[in-house]
Amino acid sequence: MNNKIKLGIVGYGNLGKGTVKAIKATDDLELVAVFTRRDPETLELDDPDVKAVHIDHASNYQNDIDVMLLCGGSATDLPEQTPHFASMFNTVDSYDTHAKIPEFYQSVNESATKHHTTAIISVGWDPGLFSINRVMGEAILPNGGNYSFWGKGLSQGHSDAVRRVNGVKSGVQYTIPSEGAIEKVRNGENPDLTTAEKHRRVCYIVPEEGADKAAIEHEIKTMPNYFADYDTEVNFISEEELNRDHSKAPHGGFVIQSGNTGEGNKQIYEFSLTLDSNPEFTSSVLVAYARAAYRLSQEKQYGAKTVYDVAPGYISPRSAEELRKHYL
Amino acid sequence: MNNKIKLGIVGYGNLGKGTVKAIKATDDLELVAVFTRRDPETLELDDPDVKAVHIDHASNYQNDIDVMLLCGGSATDLPEQTPHFASMFNTVDSYDTHAKIPEFYQSVNESATKHHTTAIISVGWDPGLFSINRVMGEAILPNGGNYSFWGKGLSQGHSDAVRRVNGVKSGVQYTIPSEGAIEKVRNGENPDLTTAEKHRRVCYIVPEEGADKAAIEHEIKTMPNYFADYDTEVNFISEEELNRDHSKAPHGGFVIQSGNTGEGNKQIYEFSLTLDSNPEFTSSVLVAYARAAYRLSQEKQYGAKTVYDVAPGYISPRSAEELRKHYL
Repeated sequence: MNNKIKLGIVGYGNLGKGTVKAIKATDDLELVAVFTRRDPETLELDDPDVKAVHIDHASNYQNDIDVMLLCGGSATDLPEQTPHFASMFNTVDSYDTHAKIPEFYQSVNESATKHHTTAIISVGWDPGLFSINRVMGEAILPNGGNYSFWGKGLSQGHSDAVRRVNGVKSGVQYTIPSEGAIEKVRNGENPDLTTAEKHRRVCYIVPEEGADKAAIEHEIKTMPNYFADYDTEVNFISEEELNRDHSKAPHGGFVIQSGNTGEGNKQIYEFSLTLDSNPEFTSSVLVAYARAAYRLSQEKQYGAKTVYDVAPGYISPRSAEELRKHYL
Repeated sequence: MNNKIKLGIVGYGNLGKGTVKAIKATDDLELVAVFTRRDPETLELDDPDVKAVHIDHASNYQNDIDVMLLCGGSATDLPEQTPHFASMFNTVDSYDTHAKIPEFYQSVNESATKHHTTAIISVGWDPGLFSINRVMGEAILPNGGNYSFWGKGLSQGHSDAVRRVNGVKSGVQYTIPSEGAIEKVRNGENPDLTTAEKHRRVCYIVPEEGADKAAIEHEIKTMPNYFADYDTEVNFISEEELNRDHSKAPHGGFVIQSGNTGEGNKQIYEFSLTLDSNPEFTSSVLVAYARAAYRLSQEKQYGAKTVYDVAPGYISPRSAEELRKHYL
C-alpha cells in the first residue's frame, strides 16, 4: 500500500507503450495492469514489472484502479470503449476525431454521470494543449486572429497515400509549416490563410527497381485532397536512407494568437511543441491528466470533461500550496 | 439591463487605463465605473462613457458590480486593497511580488472566504500565463528542465537605476534573452544557467552636456546586482532618439520545458509572448480572468484562487458546448 494514484492502461499499441514509460517517469503514479484484447500471454512487454490482463477481466479491478487510461484508436475503439469503461472507472482518453467530439462527449457524459465517474476526453496535444491555447489566446486578445500550424511532423495518412502510388516501394511524408506564413503571423499581419497556404509537404520515396520516378512525382503532386493544393516536394532516397533517417515519429506545431490592444499595439501569444516522438508526448499528456481525473472524482465532479474544464494545478503532482510558493 | 458581466476598476494608472481599453474590446463585459483615490473630477478619462467615482464610495456599488479589477501596485496598494475589496466584491488583481505571494494569498483568502467572494490573485503574464506553463510543462515532461527567459523588455527598475548614474540625463534599459542560452535549451541540452547567463542588458543613455561617457559606461557596467554580473551594452543616443525610438513599453519572454521521454526522445514545450505594450497585455489577461471570477462565484467557489485553480474554459466568453464543438 502507498499513496500513489493507481492506473490501468487499455490497449498496447504505440500510445499504450508510451503510457507505460510516461507513468514510470513519475513519482506519484503507479501502473497496476495493461488490459488487452489479445491473449495476455503473447503481449511482449518491455518491462517485466508490468502485468498484462485480458480486457474482459477489467471489471474485476474496479477497487484496485483509480483511473483507466484508454489508449485505443479514435476510429472504432474509443467510441465504444470510453462509455463502457466510464461505467466502471474514471478515465482519460485521446479521442481526436475533431468533428465528432460533441456526440462522443454526449455518450461518455451519459455513462460517467450515471455511474459517478470522471471521464476526461480528447486529451493530448491537438486536441489538448493546442485547444487550450487557441481558447486562452482568443479570450485574452479578442481583437486578433488565431493560427494553428502543424509540423514538422510525420503524417501517417499522407505517408500511407504515397505508399499506394504505383512504383513506390516505401516512403514517408512530412507536413512542414510554411516559414513565410509563420513570419506574417508573427509580424501581426493577420493574414487570411488556408491550411494549404500554411503548410508544405515533403515526401521521401524509395522507388521500386526500375520505376518511373517522373511518373511517381507527378502522381503524388497531383493527388487530389492530399497534395494537389499544396506546395509539395518529392525526394527519392534508398531504403537504407529511409531506415536510417526516417524511422522516428516527430511532430509538433504552433498556435499563435496575434492581437491588438489599445491604439494598435501588437501582442503576440505563441505556444509551440517540437516533438521527437508524437505518441510518447501524447502519452505524457494523458498521464498528467490522470491526476486531474482522480482529483475531480474525489471532489465528486462527475461526468465527461475536456481540457477546458481542468484547472492547470490539477495535472501537477505538487500541492496547491507548493505551486503558489515556488511556481507562481 | 443586459446580460453582460459588470466590472469596476480600482486605480487609474497604466494598468487601469489598459483595463478600460481591454473591456471595450469585449462583447460580454461592461465597465460600470473607475474608482480612484484622487478627486474624480480631475481624472482625465480618454473615454467620455467612463464614470469616475471616489474610492470611498465603492461600497455603494456592491449590487451593481460583479467583479472588481484591482489595478494598483504590488508594493503598497494591493496588500491593503485586495483583502479590503474582497470583503465586498469578487476581485481580480495582478499582485506580482513573487516572494510574498503565500502571505498575500492567506490574507486575501481569509477575507474572501469569510465574505463569500471569489478573489483571483496574481493574474497577468508573470505571474500568470508563465506560471501556468511552468507547471504544465513540468507536469507533462517530468524528466527535464524548465527555463523562463524574460525580454526583449523595458525594465522599469533597471531604467531607474541607470538614470540615477552621475552625468545621465535620461535613459532606458532593455533585458534581452541570450540567444545562445535559448538555443541550448531548445536543443534539449538542459544546461545549468543563472539568470545572468540567460539574459543580457542593453542601455540607451542620453548623457548630460559635457558628461564623461566612459565614466558613465563604467559605472553602469560595474553596478552591483543590477549590471555587474551581466553582459551589459551601453549605447549613447540623443534625447530626440530616445523619445522617437524608446517610448513604448515592450516586453515578453519564453517559458521552455525541455524534456525526455522513452529512450531519449527530446520533447520541447514552449510558450512565448512578444508584447508591444506590457501593461495593456497584463490588463487584457486581468479582464479575461474577470469571467472566471464571476463564474466561480456563481458556483459558490469562494476564497482566494490563483491561475492554477482556473480551468481554461472559464476565461473564455464562449459556452462549454461551443468550445467543445469548434475549438477542441
